[in-house]
Amino acid sequence: MKKEPFVTLEQVKEIAAQYPTPFYVYDEKGIRENVKALKEAFSWNKGYKEFFAVKATPNPYLVNILQEYGCGCDCSSMTELMFAKAVNCQPGDVMFSSNDTPDVEFKYCDEIGGIINLDDITHIDHVEKTLGKIPKTISCRYNPGGVFTIANNIMDNPGDAKYGMTTEQIFEAFRILKEKGAEEFGIHAFLVSNTITNEYYPMLAKLMFELAVKLQQETGAHIKFVNLSGGIGIPYRPTDTPNDIKIIGEGVRKAFEEVLVPAGMGDVAIYTELGRYMMGPYGAVVTQAIHEKHIHKEYIGVDACAVNLMRPAMYGAYHHITVLGKEDAECDHKYDVTGSLCENNDKFAIDRMLPKIDMGDYLVIHDAGAHGYAMGYNYNGKLKCAEILLKEDGSYQLIRRAETPADYFRTFDCFPIYEKLIQK
Amino acid sequence: MKKEPFVTLEQVKEIAAQYPTPFYVYDEKGIRENVKALKEAFSWNKGYKEFFAVKATPNPYLVNILQEYGCGCDCSSMTELMFAKAVNCQPGDVMFSSNDTPDVEFKYCDEIGGIINLDDITHIDHVEKTLGKIPKTISCRYNPGGVFTIANNIMDNPGDAKYGMTTEQIFEAFRILKEKGAEEFGIHAFLVSNTITNEYYPMLAKLMFELAVKLQQETGAHIKFVNLSGGIGIPYRPTDTPNDIKIIGEGVRKAFEEVLVPAGMGDVAIYTELGRYMMGPYGAVVTQAIHEKHIHKEYIGVDACAVNLMRPAMYGAYHHITVLGKEDAECDHKYDVTGSLCENNDKFAIDRMLPKIDMGDYLVIHDAGAHGYAMGYNYNGKLKCAEILLKEDGSYQLIRRAETPADYFRTFDCFPIYEKLIQK
Repeated sequence: MKKEPFVTLEQVKEIAAQYPTPFYVYDEKGIRENVKALKEAFSWNKGYKEFFAVKATPNPYLVNILQEYGCGCDCSSMTELMFAKAVNCQPGDVMFSSNDTPDVEFKYCDEIGGIINLDDITHIDHVEKTLGKIPKTISCRYNPGGVFTIANNIMDNPGDAKYGMTTEQIFEAFRILKEKGAEEFGIHAFLVSNTITNEYYPMLAKLMFELAVKLQQETGAHIKFVNLSGGIGIPYRPTDTPNDIKIIGEGVRKAFEEVLVPAGMGDVAIYTELGRYMMGPYGAVVTQAIHEKHIHKEYIGVDACAVNLMRPAMYGAYHHITVLGKEDAECDHKYDVTGSLCENNDKFAIDRMLPKIDMGDYLVIHDAGAHGYAMGYNYNGKLKCAEILLKEDGSYQLIRRAETPADYFRTFDCFPIYEKLIQK
Repeated sequence: MKKEPFVTLEQVKEIAAQYPTPFYVYDEKGIRENVKALKEAFSWNKGYKEFFAVKATPNPYLVNILQEYGCGCDCSSMTELMFAKAVNCQPGDVMFSSNDTPDVEFKYCDEIGGIINLDDITHIDHVEKTLGKIPKTISCRYNPGGVFTIANNIMDNPGDAKYGMTTEQIFEAFRILKEKGAEEFGIHAFLVSNTITNEYYPMLAKLMFELAVKLQQETGAHIKFVNLSGGIGIPYRPTDTPNDIKIIGEGVRKAFEEVLVPAGMGDVAIYTELGRYMMGPYGAVVTQAIHEKHIHKEYIGVDACAVNLMRPAMYGAYHHITVLGKEDAECDHKYDVTGSLCENNDKFAIDRMLPKIDMGDYLVIHDAGAHGYAMGYNYNGKLKCAEILLKEDGSYQLIRRAETPADYFRTFDCFPIYEKLIQK
């Protein structure tokens, strides 16, 4: 599939005149169309709800868009819970799927009406002591162990993952929680990240639905929802076949009708906690070529670096690159596209075939809308960039300002040296 | 070599009473002894100077200690240059070893009297245009290409590294720079990271000294310094043999006397840009065990996570762990020691044999003094921790405060939602 940027050279020039590169740009139109298709794909399920994984793209103005379609927030920390409250999440709009959780975060989650998704059986005591009760609605995270295989080359090892409860533990947890007053139950599992196969969710759903039936039958607990968590991926490479959310929704429906309906559990709601799928393709890093270097290889230096997008450095992840204005030019130059960190892994692309790049060219680094800005660090003292929303009508809006040196030095603001640090 | 923490359980308890875990603690005594030994090892070289790689540990109070011993700062970005100015670096105290450099940073470096270390020949034009001149003292970074082998299992591929100039280019650069008015020259190379062999620096020195002789003879440029950059590593594992800085210094001296002295270049100064070697062993993350989990494996959850120390998650790096108060207990339990991120790579140790860990135990994660705090991010909305200096007299001092939610949300401070975000 040809990967086309959602932003034009003219739009980038206009934005860059006001907000210097690098910056993130997000595609309001794409975000809306995608969430609409997701809702449609699961519209057969009455209680369906997507809890956007805030960690992927913690920007309130982007989450506001998803909220128009009834999405809630999947949170994993205190600040993410604060974020959810600030964007006006109501009781039932927050799923707190954390692990190794401090007690104070359970408490705050409960205060704002969030649903606690227990990662571990030992957390039952913590929750009860901290809250002085067990919440009426509660969820447990499941880890089946072993290896989970979707296809020959798509698998993961839940047995090596730190998350969730074993089969035995989840049954025990349900019994204890019910005894302590829980009335509505959920189950949750996350087995494989970023799958581009339509089979993952249906397979996971079947496994979870079967577990739900057993749990309800054996413990008498009423299962209110099955949370399929994240894992639906996006096609980072032009050669990747994208997921078809309609087929995925139908696959889950099939499992639902085969397993839950016959067990009299047709009232179970499906929850999802998608992050990458909701935002990944609809965010891009826009950066300018500022340096060309001809040594043992050919390098194009850009004004973005791993501070802006860490996935290539951290995971060796592929991110497609378009040179704006040269969309149809032949890709007959082999480049390493590098950032400026004193880290040799600070490369957005290695041996990538691209059109000839001239200094000043704008490059769009695709699919950075999830786990992009959010994973930025400040290594080498580099500052994080602004985020811009490209609106449906073609206008644009700043939705996060760029960092300044004062931000970088702010944890010295109670020390005498601070005034000197922020002074150029 | 048995790895012993530099901080005791009593000291940690005292600090933790004031500054909650997790926190970084640094060992003033260790820092001082190490820098003294380094200076001594190179005392045979009249112009020797260490430029501390600020990126490793950008804390002014730690750099202040090194400055007492005549160290300067190796900077790689605008904020690091601002940092160097704030800690009162004087002309000649700053080495600006950056790559893919924006012009504005060359300008600022020159303003504060820093020495520009040109990463690329194309930067000559940029510097000249931006500064309106070529500085009298200037350095060029060298990349020999190919593979650099120290021993069978220690090598790296400069040919794949984005840094520096080719042999041909560095000669050309010297000629151009001399013609444009440069009077004092330096050369610089960084070939292998974190070596724990006494041979790296002497081998590199020989290569650089031979290059220096040729450059001086062929271009007539006066070589003022040879900058051996970083690369001297530390023993992260108990089985690693630490470097002997005295042997390293003597090895460099031998090459100096064999190559430079006979060429009449005995006045060349040796510069270094050590980061890890200066701070790595003298900083540790102190964290508390808050969660034990028994599923398909045994997990100990701590209150630190990859936000505090990313090297294990990013590089799979080994960091030794001591359970305070159990230094002499048998290591008969196998644990994964995990942080709380929703990332399965957020593990400080995998299958690590440790004493039985009880909830509330304090763990010291060793060798985090370099590229530790500095590489922290805010993924999952987690906040960075404080830094504490353990002073020579056993007292302690806060040298960086912990982040607050207001810091995390600060790039929204010009938006209406900010007040809501920071409100619990």
